[in-house]
Amino acid sequence: MSIAPGIAFPHRHLLGIDGLSPPEIIHILDLADSYVEQSRRVDKKSTLLKGLTVINLFFENSTRTRTSFEAAAKRLDADVINMAISTSSIKKGETLIDTAMTLNAMHPDALVVRHSDSGAVQLLAEKVAGAVINAGDGRHEHPTQALLDALTIRRRIGHLDNLTVAICGDIAHSRVARSNIHLLQIMGARVRVIAPPTLLPSAIDRMGVEVFTDMRAGLRDVDIVMMLRLQLERMQGSFVPSVREYFRFFGLDREKLACAKPDALIMHPGPMNRGVEIDSELADDIDRSLIRDQVEMGVAVRMAVLDVLTRPLREAGATEGGGE
Amino acid sequence: MSIAPGIAFPHRHLLGIDGLSPPEIIHILDLADSYVEQSRRVDKKSTLLKGLTVINLFFENSTRTRTSFEAAAKRLDADVINMAISTSSIKKGETLIDTAMTLNAMHPDALVVRHSDSGAVQLLAEKVAGAVINAGDGRHEHPTQALLDALTIRRRIGHLDNLTVAICGDIAHSRVARSNIHLLQIMGARVRVIAPPTLLPSAIDRMGVEVFTDMRAGLRDVDIVMMLRLQLERMQGSFVPSVREYFRFFGLDREKLACAKPDALIMHPGPMNRGVEIDSELADDIDRSLIRDQVEMGVAVRMAVLDVLTRPLREAGATEGGGE
Amino acid sequence: MSIAPGIAFPHRHLLGIDGLSPPEIIHILDLADSYVEQSRRVDKKSTLLKGLTVINLFFENSTRTRTSFEAAAKRLDADVINMAISTSSIKKGETLIDTAMTLNAMHPDALVVRHSDSGAVQLLAEKVAGAVINAGDGRHEHPTQALLDALTIRRRIGHLDNLTVAICGDIAHSRVARSNIHLLQIMGARVRVIAPPTLLPSAIDRMGVEVFTDMRAGLRDVDIVMMLRLQLERMQGSFVPSVREYFRFFGLDREKLACAKPDALIMHPGPMNRGVEIDSELADDIDRSLIRDQVEMGVAVRMAVLDVLTRPLREAGATEGGGE
Repeated sequence: MSIAPGIAFPHRHLLGIDGLSPPEIIHILDLADSYVEQSRRVDKKSTLLKGLTVINLFFENSTRTRTSFEAAAKRLDADVINMAISTSSIKKGETLIDTAMTLNAMHPDALVVRHSDSGAVQLLAEKVAGAVINAGDGRHEHPTQALLDALTIRRRIGHLDNLTVAICGDIAHSRVARSNIHLLQIMGARVRVIAPPTLLPSAIDRMGVEVFTDMRAGLRDVDIVMMLRLQLERMQGSFVPSVREYFRFFGLDREKLACAKPDALIMHPGPMNRGVEIDSELADDIDRSLIRDQVEMGVAVRMAVLDVLTRPLREAGATEGGGE
Repeated sequence: MSIAPGIAFPHRHLLGIDGLSPPEIIHILDLADSYVEQSRRVDKKSTLLKGLTVINLFFENSTRTRTSFEAAAKRLDADVINMAISTSSIKKGETLIDTAMTLNAMHPDALVVRHSDSGAVQLLAEKVAGAVINAGDGRHEHPTQALLDALTIRRRIGHLDNLTVAICGDIAHSRVARSNIHLLQIMGARVRVIAPPTLLPSAIDRMGVEVFTDMRAGLRDVDIVMMLRLQLERMQGSFVPSVREYFRFFGLDREKLACAKPDALIMHPGPMNRGVEIDSELADDIDRSLIRDQVEMGVAVRMAVLDVLTRPLREAGATEGGGE
Repeated sequence: MSIAPGIAFPHRHLLGIDGLSPPEIIHILDLADSYVEQSRRVDKKSTLLKGLTVINLFFENSTRTRTSFEAAAKRLDADVINMAISTSSIKKGETLIDTAMTLNAMHPDALVVRHSDSGAVQLLAEKVAGAVINAGDGRHEHPTQALLDALTIRRRIGHLDNLTVAICGDIAHSRVARSNIHLLQIMGARVRVIAPPTLLPSAIDRMGVEVFTDMRAGLRDVDIVMMLRLQLERMQGSFVPSVREYFRFFGLDREKLACAKPDALIMHPGPMNRGVEIDSELADDIDRSLIRDQVEMGVAVRMAVLDVLTRPLREAGATEGGGE
């Protein structure tokens, strides 16, 4: 990420949370707060991105995330083009670089990219002139998820610092976990991870988190419990737990939640496997569960990210110029 | 459906024709008439739904119906987001309720839903804040199809009451038949159904229709012949007729049509199986066939439905508040 | 194509390059030049097609071409509806004529069609009221590709006449080759084709081109080398070359390119099979390769085509009336 000092958000792309500063994160969250209000109006539309082109480039299927970005871009009046690439040119043998060149020639102002490989979004960002937003790349990062989680917490509790947050479940395969660990640490929260040893990444010791393999111990006195989706589809060749066993030891239910602070809040990035990683009734508990809020905050955070990343383009008045 | 008395269309959702009153149906048809004219202009767009979000949520694939709703919403200046769910989160095990929660958090003002289960659209309607429009649910209802059929007839003949309408073919599997039976009866038409006994629903005796298993007898003196698509894909495990036999006994051709009134009109919801349920040349007879008009009326009726259902939201100026 | 004399572009549809006159082609290219500038602005949008409906009707999957047309139409403020038909009604047995009737009833002002059969787009054009743009039909034509190639050459070299252009590769299966041969000949360029005998069409003798089966001989003194994609997916039942053999004899590399003029330029319609029909490093040579420019010109040319074809509709102010 090239950095322009003195600007509220001085990065050309949003490839990850790693490397952002507290004021940069706060700037996005403050902006997102205003977009929450805009999305609750009947006329949800402003003209900030009028005439700009946003391309949703999804190499992995994700209706939820794509829809959230699409709603965000349209509410800012951008033209949105959806490209699901698994079903087309990549099948014909086109390289990722050629896809980038092709897209670049269409002058997108922002490119929202999801890809199954951890390095793919970075590679695209080096080749295109517009702003690239990582919508999830392999096991690497999913920065808008961490931002929407932070916005959700901040709106409920008022701050992020001095909280103790436990992230529970399939840490090894989770870009959501990785982005949240970065963001929470940057903002001064204490982060714990709770997982069976087989679902911990090998680099966990260098992540600055407290590691627990017993859920009750890990939940002791936490303010927030972030459950992760059990990514069964990513576990090829490694240990696949039995769902019943998994829920018994690592699924969130009222009995385990009782170990946390009395008013501890529950989060989940969705889609949930009810009865696998979380008790169904607990997921719907409107006093404890922030899961509904998370989705709403997703659209607002993505509006804010599109706003800050296209601001230099909008102020300069032209998208010309190549990659970095 | 919760009802607000004194309003021209007092329902929050359009889940079916069953339960609508004659003035409510007339209100939609009158409004749709004006939208027919709008769609024939070069500039087909008005700003009625400017800034509103319409989500097309299709659990069953249907390019025709989705496209018709998409054109309708865009011509009213709404932002339209298409979600084809079979290919994404439901595959990952997400429940319908979670999908509803997710969507609701994006504040859609209208949700157009097609689903293979008869109760699914009702369930969604109970959970979301915006207006839900049933675009076909299982064998239950397909209300906008019945409304566009009614508009087509009314524009050609001038009225719906005192007509005799024969609905022919696969009644058992047809939500189109069900919605049309309700609408025609509400509006004072006489309804016959014509089908082989194996393609009649078990509840046919309680539907208030005349039942025929001989097509020539059933067509005697009718004003309108509505042919249904033979839903071969829905007939798993039950009687599947041979196509040649079917056409011989229940396909519409000039010889059978001669039993109806001399100026009887032909309708079909499409897509047609030419040579199976209808003679190809008869389908294209511009004096007798209303099939082309039906598609055009589809866009107009959907504009009218989006208009009436979002009117309370637009007048109140906010979409907040949960499900019922 | 019905022709209205005295108008700058007097055709209702753009089904192919064959039949166009030099002034008609120049008119589109001149107009496209202005749209190149528009697409480089941050606000890429004008209101020329405000309120018009453009339907992208793709019977063959092509994310690149569909996206290019979608961007073009949206930058002119049209409403765009994407229909990928392979996955829906055609599977249910609907005929192409019924699809045309269905679409027509939605009053599209322009219909962009890709189909695997050479005659399909012509057939649709006879049945619909709006303008039809051929986005590639079987082995027949792909006119906007030839127009964007012409615009790319003209912007770099300044003219099309008196150039020698070699089109190399799978001529037999290529609608891109066919459209380019027509356009280049109409505009006064000399055209050569270079291919193994098995990849030449049987009618090649009547095309007015010089035929080479040796690449070095064919490239002698040419100004432009247009490489074609090796359409392995279209070669069922015919000779399928080994990729290594093919590259040795017909792949473009620096050594073979040395036979052309010293400043000869390279083109490719994409997506490229790097290392099969073109050396990867040569494809990226910014002095010799026009491949990036081609994609950018694609959007501009499609904006120009949408402009000229909808102009009569926009000036008349109505889309009514049936097919030809």
